Amino acid sequence: MTLKELGEFGFIRRIATGAGSGSGVALGIGDDAAAIIPTPGMQTLVTADMLVEGIHFDLTFTAPFELGRKSLAVNLSDMAAMGGEPRFALLSLAIPPDLPLEFLDHFMAGFTGCGKEQGVTLIGGDTCSSLSGFVISVTLMGEQSSSRIVRRSGARPGDLIHVTGTVGDSALGLELLRRGERGGGAITRHLNPLPRNQAGVELAKRGLVSAMIDVSDGLLADLGHLLEQSGQGGKLFLRQLPLSAEYLRRSPVLSDDRFTFALSGGEDYELLFTSPPERREEIRDLSASLQLPITAIGEIHEEPALVVIAPDGSTYTPGSRGFDHFA
Amino acid sequence: MTLKELGEFGFIRRIATGAGSGSGVALGIGDDAAAIIPTPGMQTLVTADMLVEGIHFDLTFTAPFELGRKSLAVNLSDMAAMGGEPRFALLSLAIPPDLPLEFLDHFMAGFTGCGKEQGVTLIGGDTCSSLSGFVISVTLMGEQSSSRIVRRSGARPGDLIHVTGTVGDSALGLELLRRGERGGGAITRHLNPLPRNQAGVELAKRGLVSAMIDVSDGLLADLGHLLEQSGQGGKLFLRQLPLSAEYLRRSPVLSDDRFTFALSGGEDYELLFTSPPERREEIRDLSASLQLPITAIGEIHEEPALVVIAPDGSTYTPGSRGFDHFA
Repeated sequence: MTLKELGEFGFIRRIATGAGSGSGVALGIGDDAAAIIPTPGMQTLVTADMLVEGIHFDLTFTAPFELGRKSLAVNLSDMAAMGGEPRFALLSLAIPPDLPLEFLDHFMAGFTGCGKEQGVTLIGGDTCSSLSGFVISVTLMGEQSSSRIVRRSGARPGDLIHVTGTVGDSALGLELLRRGERGGGAITRHLNPLPRNQAGVELAKRGLVSAMIDVSDGLLADLGHLLEQSGQGGKLFLRQLPLSAEYLRRSPVLSDDRFTFALSGGEDYELLFTSPPERREEIRDLSASLQLPITAIGEIHEEPALVVIAPDGSTYTPGSRGFDHFA
Repeated sequence: MTLKELGEFGFIRRIATGAGSGSGVALGIGDDAAAIIPTPGMQTLVTADMLVEGIHFDLTFTAPFELGRKSLAVNLSDMAAMGGEPRFALLSLAIPPDLPLEFLDHFMAGFTGCGKEQGVTLIGGDTCSSLSGFVISVTLMGEQSSSRIVRRSGARPGDLIHVTGTVGDSALGLELLRRGERGGGAITRHLNPLPRNQAGVELAKRGLVSAMIDVSDGLLADLGHLLEQSGQGGKLFLRQLPLSAEYLRRSPVLSDDRFTFALSGGEDYELLFTSPPERREEIRDLSASLQLPITAIGEIHEEPALVVIAPDGSTYTPGSRGFDHFA
């Protein structure tokens, strides 16, 4: 069977069958709009991300199942950064005529599988043809009470800057893919990122964070967004950066500056957050209970600038600050 | 100034400035997600549509301001078909590097202008670069109480089939554009469709409709969706179709079958709905108060088929049933 034989409406029925149903859905795929039942007392959080062939992904080394997972995961990461519980997704696809139906089936299996793991129901979207490349647009809705929602703007002088997991592996993985490698931990981090939703919700519920953002544009760029919106400056200590063993081994060979992937690579989908120093013990406890490293990498100060301190104590000047789609 | 000089984050700030603020928005553009405050007792309606250059629009005859309006209007039309009050929009754009900033400014002015007219606040989205054409993805959120939300599935035998406005003008307008014409009512209908949100909400509030859909794929295709989801059949009388003077004058010249644009053209963004015959007087009253023609064009019957009756009383066989992206 081809997509052409199945037709637009056959394809939508096929997606609807795989989407399943979830609590809070009054009306799912198949009408002019979906209808959901908001939980009383909760605010609705909503975020959108677009993934464009040739810009965000390269089909020569990206399998459709992983691409489906990642399309939802990058949105889940934004939801995690707000401390929100993810609930519902809409998926719009512009599909080149030569894309096999099997590719789309695998893509959808990845998308809905990731959704099921995280309690997200696919409730709508759009499908159309594309003259030029596969385009994926996802909207993710979630919920949280207003007192628990975490913004980028709440960092205060003296707060410590923390990051979950390790940084730089995704950018390292992309570089390895471009050089023809096809396996290993860093490549998996790039192709199949695991968003930190449990950590995001727990940090928010326990009131441990003053400001939070996910690392998608690059650690320096995203820290810059957080500082700018908080009206603060900060100090970042490179010797404290959580780097994987693979990163420590391979990045000095692949890059002139061994910190570049970690500082400017992006797509880590880790959580970068600030927290008052007196909450440090509670963050350690959470890190242990989630079995997720959480590392203090710097501190907030009032002077409105980001100062990066090299391992030898000197001031470090980064080459690039992160990804800008139009620069 | 070019988009490259402005940069991704400068462009987002520029959009945020134009977006303004609206009631119910706890957190708008600028964080990892937006936060909205659902109205107690209301369900949230959500719909998404993607518009792809070369598929949905041709930049040789589409001005950016109108394209911005239409990108929101096609979603507003879906919201109207549910009887929902539109509230919040997310806009994701994949932008070719050579698209002038002025184009984007006009596009955004059209989008946000249409939003302001309809009470819709832009609260988020995504911007990225595109290797191949301008791609627009819109998510529209709205609200309605569960008892008023209108589905496609409620048509019952004996119900009359109604349509707002006139049908076929948009497809006629597209044909005229392709033949090099640049002005006139049908072309305006194609480039700048006016969604029927006031009518949709009033029909829902007054409980006048048993099922509703908007005419986007084409009258026959959309009536087919409504009948299929209602598990009913129907009879459509071609002599009752509401056709504009321009349509009556020009469609016989431009098409072998003067009904083709009206039945299969699509993009009318009129409301197609069913209603019990005893409510006909109330529909007339609503039509008069809205100054919007509402025409009965057929009726629902139990036999699961759509029968189209030609003006001479014979059974009519349409050439095409409507637009399918993959067929």
